[in-house]
Amino acid sequence: MDDPLLRFRAEFPILDRVTYLVSHSMGAMPRSARTWVERYLDAWDERGVQAWEGWEPYLREHADRLALLLGAPPGSVVLHQNVTTLFSALLSALVRPGGRRTVVATDLNFPSLLYAARGHEPLGLRLVLLRSPDGIGVPLKAWEEAVGRDTLAVLVDHGIFRSGFLQDVTAICEIAHRRGAWAVVDAYQTAGCVPFDVGAWGADAVLGGSHKWLCGGPGAAWMYVRPDRAEELRPAAAGWFGHRDPFAFALEFDPAPGAARFATGTPAIPALFAARPGLELVMGVGVRAIREKSVRLTQRMLERAEALGLTVRTPRDPARRSGMVVVDFPGAEAASRELVARGILVDYRPGGGIRMSPHFYTRADEVEAAFDALEELVPRVRR
Amino acid sequence: MDDPLLRFRAEFPILDRVTYLVSHSMGAMPRSARTWVERYLDAWDERGVQAWEGWEPYLREHADRLALLLGAPPGSVVLHQNVTTLFSALLSALVRPGGRRTVVATDLNFPSLLYAARGHEPLGLRLVLLRSPDGIGVPLKAWEEAVGRDTLAVLVDHGIFRSGFLQDVTAICEIAHRRGAWAVVDAYQTAGCVPFDVGAWGADAVLGGSHKWLCGGPGAAWMYVRPDRAEELRPAAAGWFGHRDPFAFALEFDPAPGAARFATGTPAIPALFAARPGLELVMGVGVRAIREKSVRLTQRMLERAEALGLTVRTPRDPARRSGMVVVDFPGAEAASRELVARGILVDYRPGGGIRMSPHFYTRADEVEAAFDALEELVPRVRR
Repeated sequence: MDDPLLRFRAEFPILDRVTYLVSHSMGAMPRSARTWVERYLDAWDERGVQAWEGWEPYLREHADRLALLLGAPPGSVVLHQNVTTLFSALLSALVRPGGRRTVVATDLNFPSLLYAARGHEPLGLRLVLLRSPDGIGVPLKAWEEAVGRDTLAVLVDHGIFRSGFLQDVTAICEIAHRRGAWAVVDAYQTAGCVPFDVGAWGADAVLGGSHKWLCGGPGAAWMYVRPDRAEELRPAAAGWFGHRDPFAFALEFDPAPGAARFATGTPAIPALFAARPGLELVMGVGVRAIREKSVRLTQRMLERAEALGLTVRTPRDPARRSGMVVVDFPGAEAASRELVARGILVDYRPGGGIRMSPHFYTRADEVEAAFDALEELVPRVRR
Repeated sequence: MDDPLLRFRAEFPILDRVTYLVSHSMGAMPRSARTWVERYLDAWDERGVQAWEGWEPYLREHADRLALLLGAPPGSVVLHQNVTTLFSALLSALVRPGGRRTVVATDLNFPSLLYAARGHEPLGLRLVLLRSPDGIGVPLKAWEEAVGRDTLAVLVDHGIFRSGFLQDVTAICEIAHRRGAWAVVDAYQTAGCVPFDVGAWGADAVLGGSHKWLCGGPGAAWMYVRPDRAEELRPAAAGWFGHRDPFAFALEFDPAPGAARFATGTPAIPALFAARPGLELVMGVGVRAIREKSVRLTQRMLERAEALGLTVRTPRDPARRSGMVVVDFPGAEAASRELVARGILVDYRPGGGIRMSPHFYTRADEVEAAFDALEELVPRVRR
């Protein structure tokens, strides 16, 4: 079958050497990341401090490209090193003495943001974790029951990192809003692989980053904040890049319009240049096309996993499945190490299993080869 | 006069093209920054997600090199994108309902950290700003009078960004400790130019970054936390890289030993590679040697400024002077633009004036040339 997306393989040198089935953790490096980082270095090298004349507009431009990806208006996305910091900054604006206290999340959320929520408990928050009955997902009913008048915010992982379960974000946002709570979505596990639109979700804030499907490397996370709601917020974690006029060096904080108020201090410019070509490639390919291929190849992965009798954590229903497949069996961790040793890059998560994923640059025969290897390994590691 | 430090000029290509007197804002790029960033790109390109096997030890190694610079023990320094975020994370661990409330700083502090302190007021902090009588510094007596039983922390800028005044950090730390308050120092304006030792200061936390004298570019800030005091702290702004065992993906936060608990989420690796060669160069030259030259050249700058009849904001006493000289006169902002247009890179700060600084790579004749240009410009812009 002819796969037009394979024309992008040449952009990713690592694909010539290994079978890269780990983009759910870290996307492959596009060749052009070097060019973009060189632009950063050239500016610093040639212009010194004057390079900021180019970097400041770049920040806005990059954030607005991300906004376009998310279906969000210009000015509604802010950049930072990681989503945890952004979520903490958001919490620091939401938690107020005498206000609502509860943040509702699940025991399947990516833990880092849970640490931030739990960390804010001495300042007045209360984190409630919905328990998953099966380690795969959490039923909507549990959200319905947990979200109430004291709920300050829900924190919804669009894709579950341990299982590849895709949550019904629209429904959970609706539940939150019915109770007057903030709907905060962590889309790091899906952005660039599963199409979504922050407006259609009705989310108040959406977090994500470039490390995974967006092939941008570490240090380039972002947060969308619904423009009308951003105006209510004054982050405790404020800083000069979030000021309306940073170079006035005013003594008092006057928040920039929109999401930019969450920018804190000086940004990590090289990480934001490194992240650009991956974003442009994904937007060029189109997340719908990426998703179509992803559903097809993960479907094939599920078929092969079932044929091998593996425990499959990932939903068969493509509408409830993110871009990865998680399989478990006795000795799975050892098998994952052996796959990696053979140049088939996957990873393993405790409480999950082996996580494998195709991306737009994956060939169908690579999926087959990975499962051929598993077919051989499964009985061997079981012993 | 033979200046052995000039042998490092070849490491900084921009010095061939411009007169770079703006390292107090952003240090020049060392040639080897390209090599270090290429190491980052090569690892990502060749190893994909496995690059983290090298990046994680790199984080510790880089932080420990900074610790050495600061006179601090290994494990006492944490890295982040900017000092504002680190200070917010520290505040988020210090502010507790029913605890001490007041943070004492001055109206000459770099504003970004003041925004964070003010931002935490709805969560229980109270920011008190000591007023400078002269726009240059704040007398010790003002600290003595302001720090009391409700003082949670003092926030001391070692070097004042508007004037080049050097505060007596040891004395202010002592005042803070006498009243049971935290002594927090922002050393961004001096690290890599003025020697200091965090232990000799007696500081509880010291913040800084690589953007200025350390010639490391943006996105590579750091915070020292006194090891015994770090153990008391649980940041609200917590994240998985601050966890004792991030890859256990545990539901609850178990802080890593020492300063690392403030790491929040995924670090901006490329910024931390870009920052390394500048740090190594500065450590190789030695901050004492840098300071000796800096005092000599800033002394000459002051002489020439006085001969021109300019308002000099920077103390004549080298013990009270950081690495830059700030001069003001009618039309100074226009003159600063003209200097830049002529390839003499300086900057201008409202409430301060033209800021100029030599670094270890500056030639004495560059200082003379800058003041020759000023001599011509001062009467012209005054009109």
